[in-house]
Amino acid sequence: MHASSLEKYEYIEKVLGYTFKDKSILQKALTHKSYSEEGMENYETLEFLGDSLVNLFVVDVLFSEFPKAREGELAQMKAYFISEDFLGELAHELRLDEYVLVGGKKKEKSLSIIADTFEALWAAVYLDSGKDLNFVRQIFERLYKDRIVRLAKENKHRRDYKTMLQEYTQKKWKERPTYRLVSVSGNDNEKVFHVECTFRDYRAIGVGRNKKEAEQDSARKLLEMLQMNM
Amino acid sequence: MHASSLEKYEYIEKVLGYTFKDKSILQKALTHKSYSEEGMENYETLEFLGDSLVNLFVVDVLFSEFPKAREGELAQMKAYFISEDFLGELAHELRLDEYVLVGGKKKEKSLSIIADTFEALWAAVYLDSGKDLNFVRQIFERLYKDRIVRLAKENKHRRDYKTMLQEYTQKKWKERPTYRLVSVSGNDNEKVFHVECTFRDYRAIGVGRNKKEAEQDSARKLLEMLQMNM
Repeated sequence: MHASSLEKYEYIEKVLGYTFKDKSILQKALTHKSYSEEGMENYETLEFLGDSLVNLFVVDVLFSEFPKAREGELAQMKAYFISEDFLGELAHELRLDEYVLVGGKKKEKSLSIIADTFEALWAAVYLDSGKDLNFVRQIFERLYKDRIVRLAKENKHRRDYKTMLQEYTQKKWKERPTYRLVSVSGNDNEKVFHVECTFRDYRAIGVGRNKKEAEQDSARKLLEMLQMNM
Repeated sequence: MHASSLEKYEYIEKVLGYTFKDKSILQKALTHKSYSEEGMENYETLEFLGDSLVNLFVVDVLFSEFPKAREGELAQMKAYFISEDFLGELAHELRLDEYVLVGGKKKEKSLSIIADTFEALWAAVYLDSGKDLNFVRQIFERLYKDRIVRLAKENKHRRDYKTMLQEYTQKKWKERPTYRLVSVSGNDNEKVFHVECTFRDYRAIGVGRNKKEAEQDSARKLLEMLQMNM
């Protein structure tokens, strides 16, 4: 099992253009905590480190390539390019889903696990390369910079929060959030709408210049709450 | 004004052990958006980049120095070492509060602004050094690594969320959150407490094995909500 999986890493190494000195660190990056075997470590702390690496590499690309963008716009782009959806896509291309070891009851390889292994992978490259940040950033940029820039120019990061929230709650709980207009204040020229978005124990108030804007704002807040607390 | 402030940067450069080739980027890192003057740019996008750099440098120190810590523990440490409180402290030592340019109605230099300039400063060093990540990390570690490790060993990062939340809401709004026991379920051996924490438009439900634990959990959630939405 191990020998063959170590061989299989050749595909990842080929795409990365990087050969690991220590294959066991790559194996660790691809081992979920549910997979317990004597002496096997899981990817949790590597993911913690890799998250910061991927975060920086993405931000650096956005900062350099969109020098006129404001901070809010950059933050919105970043949110997309570090999302489970996007990183999961990159992980699938590297076939990380084929290599990841999961065990116990957790036989399915969720998108969340696949995206985690993508982050852990970058920590593995970083550590194996002797912590050469410039070198690791270079690999990341060779693989993904052009795509990030292209997708950002296509506005792939501009998403609709109500749709995203509904997709999220439907997937996890098979339920939908509800919206309720709480108040409208201000005069005719400058109205302020408050909308309450409720889902299970969570509640968020959104603010906007019209109902739609306030709904979007409440959906965004609730989505953040759910994602922080899961 | 500018000439003298450019000279004054000598103190920052001395502490960093780094002389800027382009002082104007340092000035940008120390200019709040409220300070408007023809051709003056503010630190917003530098802070966006610097946040990722500081984040990575802190995480790298923690990962390397606490190899046995679990992911949850590392995350708790990280939360403290990238907090406004801690970064604001480092910023004060560099006297960034003396150099930062704020204008308009915003005459006071809040802790939030000071901590922001600390992040922006690292982006400035990064860009001015020709984006040499290894070099910038080295400066950061020379200045802060030992302190981060010492404070982490002293458990400075273990904080009480109810206290933190109250400090936060008192400082920003001169008001306090309220707590309410919502439900107690389960049997005698395994009770589950739900506590609701409310502050203004925000509401979070905390869960725990006793009231205190549920209160802490609700305070943590509300604090995250407030910090995400400010």
